Amino acid sequence: MPLDTLLITDAGAVRTVTMNRPDALNALSMAMMDDLADAFLDAAVDDSVKVVVLTGAGRAFSAGADLSEMGGPPKQQRHGLNGMIEAIIDFPKPLLVAVNGLGVGYGATVCGLADYVVMADTARLRAPFSALGITAELASTATFPRLMGHQRASWFLLAAEWMQATECVEAGLAAEVVPAEGLAARVAERATMLAALPLASLVTTKRLLRAPHLDAMKASVRAENRALAELTGAEANREALAAFIEKRPPDFTGL
Amino acid sequence: MPLDTLLITDAGAVRTVTMNRPDALNALSMAMMDDLADAFLDAAVDDSVKVVVLTGAGRAFSAGADLSEMGGPPKQQRHGLNGMIEAIIDFPKPLLVAVNGLGVGYGATVCGLADYVVMADTARLRAPFSALGITAELASTATFPRLMGHQRASWFLLAAEWMQATECVEAGLAAEVVPAEGLAARVAERATMLAALPLASLVTTKRLLRAPHLDAMKASVRAENRALAELTGAEANREALAAFIEKRPPDFTGL
Amino acid sequence: MPLDTLLITDAGAVRTVTMNRPDALNALSMAMMDDLADAFLDAAVDDSVKVVVLTGAGRAFSAGADLSEMGGPPKQQRHGLNGMIEAIIDFPKPLLVAVNGLGVGYGATVCGLADYVVMADTARLRAPFSALGITAELASTATFPRLMGHQRASWFLLAAEWMQATECVEAGLAAEVVPAEGLAARVAERATMLAALPLASLVTTKRLLRAPHLDAMKASVRAENRALAELTGAEANREALAAFIEKRPPDFTGL
Repeated sequence: MPLDTLLITDAGAVRTVTMNRPDALNALSMAMMDDLADAFLDAAVDDSVKVVVLTGAGRAFSAGADLSEMGGPPKQQRHGLNGMIEAIIDFPKPLLVAVNGLGVGYGATVCGLADYVVMADTARLRAPFSALGITAELASTATFPRLMGHQRASWFLLAAEWMQATECVEAGLAAEVVPAEGLAARVAERATMLAALPLASLVTTKRLLRAPHLDAMKASVRAENRALAELTGAEANREALAAFIEKRPPDFTGL
Repeated sequence: MPLDTLLITDAGAVRTVTMNRPDALNALSMAMMDDLADAFLDAAVDDSVKVVVLTGAGRAFSAGADLSEMGGPPKQQRHGLNGMIEAIIDFPKPLLVAVNGLGVGYGATVCGLADYVVMADTARLRAPFSALGITAELASTATFPRLMGHQRASWFLLAAEWMQATECVEAGLAAEVVPAEGLAARVAERATMLAALPLASLVTTKRLLRAPHLDAMKASVRAENRALAELTGAEANREALAAFIEKRPPDFTGL
Repeated sequence: MPLDTLLITDAGAVRTVTMNRPDALNALSMAMMDDLADAFLDAAVDDSVKVVVLTGAGRAFSAGADLSEMGGPPKQQRHGLNGMIEAIIDFPKPLLVAVNGLGVGYGATVCGLADYVVMADTARLRAPFSALGITAELASTATFPRLMGHQRASWFLLAAEWMQATECVEAGLAAEVVPAEGLAARVAERATMLAALPLASLVTTKRLLRAPHLDAMKASVRAENRALAELTGAEANREALAAFIEKRPPDFTGL
């Protein structure tokens, strides 16, 4: 099955899933959500795959939700956002993320679902939810405090500030930062090392590590999605989108 | 409603609550517990307030329980210790803490309930519970291990040693340390940044971040309070207070 | 009761339990499991003991499971692995671990059950589970992510790489690293400091710190043990043991 928005390549037992909308900074379009869900569902059951690497084509990792689709007509989706989230959370094999450039929204929160994140030294992450009048997603309200502690996670998810690659490592959101030109090689080395180990051990240990948190993660996703549905289109979100269109800073005074 | 033990000032949507018993090193008297509870309950429902900053007047942040009231007659309280704890735990808006000087007991454990803590480089914290023959409170047995990891939290809560500001940041109990003379300005800058964002996003994201832990935090408070009731007045606590009065080190041999 | 595999010495209220099979690098034989269980059960109820230090004799801390017993006839055990794990998890007093040399398998995972770990600068830890075709134990799938964050814990438990002492401290698996020649003195100083405090406070605060996680830790132990039973003797484990005997690297291709 060809997936229009992704490049999928295998090297031994390592599958690399590359988000491939570089002109849109790999923004998470509705088509890409479906393609990512299919890619993870397929890799989960493909016995030739032991490890998956997620990365982005071009200079960005992912700019987050595709604003060009906002307010447009709803599309028929095979899996939708929720199907994509479930497919990643339930992905049973080690998931490495190579953050090759900026990650915004989903491009930041997906790191919380990874088993190992390597960032280019030029990469940085931002959770713009408050600045858009909405709230956090992809289980980040559950995963980020466990990775970073409550205070760093709160600031990152509340304040919409950028976090540089080195800060991400200090905070525990990424395991390593490497020079951008060495990112692909380093991630390939890490992934190949895992792929040389027996799949039953990798899958079992990951399952044991996730088990104590799995229900709480899924409860957080449901609560986040309900909250997103409430805030989307409400007053602050409308002001944020209006300001975006009018190319002015939003004014949330009194909101 | 005037609150005798606090100074309350607003700057835009940022409310600053200053513990104002500098001659007593802002010790947590029974009156201050009630005042703090009222201050948080009021700020929670005041639509003009988006963010609260908690700090102390004078050279200390808070010296903890007011020992001068210990053993005295019980006072009629509007909320009591438990009402104060609940009001802070349930406070729905971002809570920043500016630790302007030493924090002991409550002055340390309240940091575990904050969304963002900035410490003056001259500040330091201590959990003197074992040295008093009692145990930890304010949900710190739940919040500290999540912030610091089990080992650092155990040592801090068991050993009654001081933790310097830089150690607090390394441990995750505080987000930043700044020169003492720049503390107020830095916290104002952070608080103002949050207060420029929409309240619905701030409140929703904080609620989502807290939700997975709220029941466990409150269960920890109940268990701590039961344990404190058992240990207060028991043999080790009596020895600690006797040593305090007699200005000698306590002797817990065989206790 | 003499315990053949351990040295047990008391200094004031500090009991030191030294694993004493230096020629076998303190590998965890079936006899040592039973002896450790008895040592912790006894120290738990001995009123003269306030704090326990666990360490190893000779140049290693512990090489992990005793491979020389693998595949041999089952021995009659007083407590077994599970009895030992329960005795350590339920040990009500502060447990300090002095990692005097390499720790592999159990020698690494037991650190997750400690209240305070000090490592010699020459010490290092390894979780070889994937390389043996098995999975993690001693509640490490629950304790390690809480100490290190999910990514570091995943890598350590999945990849079978060594972690140096300084990395262990950065990760939160140990509280301190000291020069090897100063390890015993430093741990004695820390333990003596705790032992000068009242036992009721130490026990109560540890109980409060453990309470929110105790059920989850025990559920993780049960899940780990079930998984270990499934993987032991399965194809990857057989290949690992064959490679060990044949002194060649294992080949997990297709496994």
